[in-house]
Amino acid sequence: MKPALNKDTQLCISLAARPSNIGTRFHNYLYDELGLDFIYKAFTTTDITAAIGGVRALGIRGCSVSMPFKEDVIALVDEMDASATAIRSVNTIVNDHGFLRASNTDYLAVAALIAEHGIDPGTSFLLRGSGGMAKAVGAAFRDAGFADGVVIARNETSGRRLADELGYRWLPDPGAETAPLIVNVTPIGMSGGAESSSLAYPLGTVDAATTVFDVVALPAETPLIRAARAAGKRIVTGAEVIALQAAHQFELYTGVRPTPEQVLAASAFSRQ
Amino acid sequence: MKPALNKDTQLCISLAARPSNIGTRFHNYLYDELGLDFIYKAFTTTDITAAIGGVRALGIRGCSVSMPFKEDVIALVDEMDASATAIRSVNTIVNDHGFLRASNTDYLAVAALIAEHGIDPGTSFLLRGSGGMAKAVGAAFRDAGFADGVVIARNETSGRRLADELGYRWLPDPGAETAPLIVNVTPIGMSGGAESSSLAYPLGTVDAATTVFDVVALPAETPLIRAARAAGKRIVTGAEVIALQAAHQFELYTGVRPTPEQVLAASAFSRQ
Repeated sequence: MKPALNKDTQLCISLAARPSNIGTRFHNYLYDELGLDFIYKAFTTTDITAAIGGVRALGIRGCSVSMPFKEDVIALVDEMDASATAIRSVNTIVNDHGFLRASNTDYLAVAALIAEHGIDPGTSFLLRGSGGMAKAVGAAFRDAGFADGVVIARNETSGRRLADELGYRWLPDPGAETAPLIVNVTPIGMSGGAESSSLAYPLGTVDAATTVFDVVALPAETPLIRAARAAGKRIVTGAEVIALQAAHQFELYTGVRPTPEQVLAASAFSRQ
Repeated sequence: MKPALNKDTQLCISLAARPSNIGTRFHNYLYDELGLDFIYKAFTTTDITAAIGGVRALGIRGCSVSMPFKEDVIALVDEMDASATAIRSVNTIVNDHGFLRASNTDYLAVAALIAEHGIDPGTSFLLRGSGGMAKAVGAAFRDAGFADGVVIARNETSGRRLADELGYRWLPDPGAETAPLIVNVTPIGMSGGAESSSLAYPLGTVDAATTVFDVVALPAETPLIRAARAAGKRIVTGAEVIALQAAHQFELYTGVRPTPEQVLAASAFSRQ
């Protein structure tokens, strides 16, 4: 058990336009489990400049940053680490006695998963999506040495922009394109969304692949992951991304690395 | 029991140069006791402007203000209520959706104790002290209609200034002065202080009084209170002031008034 709340308890927060309970439950579960004198709570704000100024002035130890603040905070921190610099987007701020250091643990988590699953950088791949998370994922692949990629996005402007940034080609839809590695970073297959029962890639593309990576985390088994699993493919799930990025974030705030089992238990608790 | 920490849990904080654990323990004890979805934690800051900006931007519900910030925050809030205006000093800020209203619950507590103990405004009185708390106490007496007062302070500058502000006389020391009501707002008699075993007034002055009011709260039984109790005087203690101001503050933050028994239990817990 962690100590009772006291004047030296460290506070970590999140800032999002529409806060969820997931981070609050995830971090507090692990503080309890690990006996750490921390508390975590989600906040929202209509004044990101004053909010980050408050993080600094109040000595709030850590601040998780979600939409729409991931780029706004760049001008408000003291240092961008390599992960945040790689994609010019921040999801984690650590406050060391008033010095704010920014990271992007989504990028770090994808980079770690590429290494962990032993995916060969010589592999050509398709990346579907062109939003902020697609940028984090694409940059992690690019920086891991993946030279042959295609960004697939219905929106030509954002699709071409991301493809140009990463040095990849752009296509408006998957069509009959195939590659040994296919990655989904769109909401297709996400529960509650308009396309919750859809596959982000045609079945033929899934069949032609050897590795299928779906960043959608809710549900853990998206239609794409189910199809890939049924076809015996190597799979990487959004649940892995979320758990790993949260573990990175937790370690940056507390200096303590939770075990994979603790992260799994905290993730399960956070979604109850 | 209060609910587990969640995104809608309200945060109240304190700001002081040297935070103690008393407020954190007092408020969290009552949140638990009353099942309120709040947490409270003490903070310090070297940038009061950014800290109060953070209170506003993060939607922190309440902020208790201690030395040396009680006057600095006047320029940072949106409204001063009558209690804060009366003494141009703030110890409580309530945040209603970004609108910051300042109060002084020390002043409110003393005003309530004057009424509760039925002290007649026609009574002449001696007030020893000339610091921030002496100002709060003196203004509460003045505003309750006490016209005949003497401010007693070794420091002529601050003593004369306070006496002038309140419309009372100034004296450098109690001497042979007597009055039916005598009030101590100096650290004389405070445990751990240089004068912990001293009386703020000569025994003859205590004997001549009918009511003795000592704002020193630690110990609850100061030498002055012990002498007054032994002589059968009506007494008003610093413990009463602290408990009442904390109850006022608690109600301003939560909308819930704890019972006197709950306040006593929380006070006892907060000092363990």
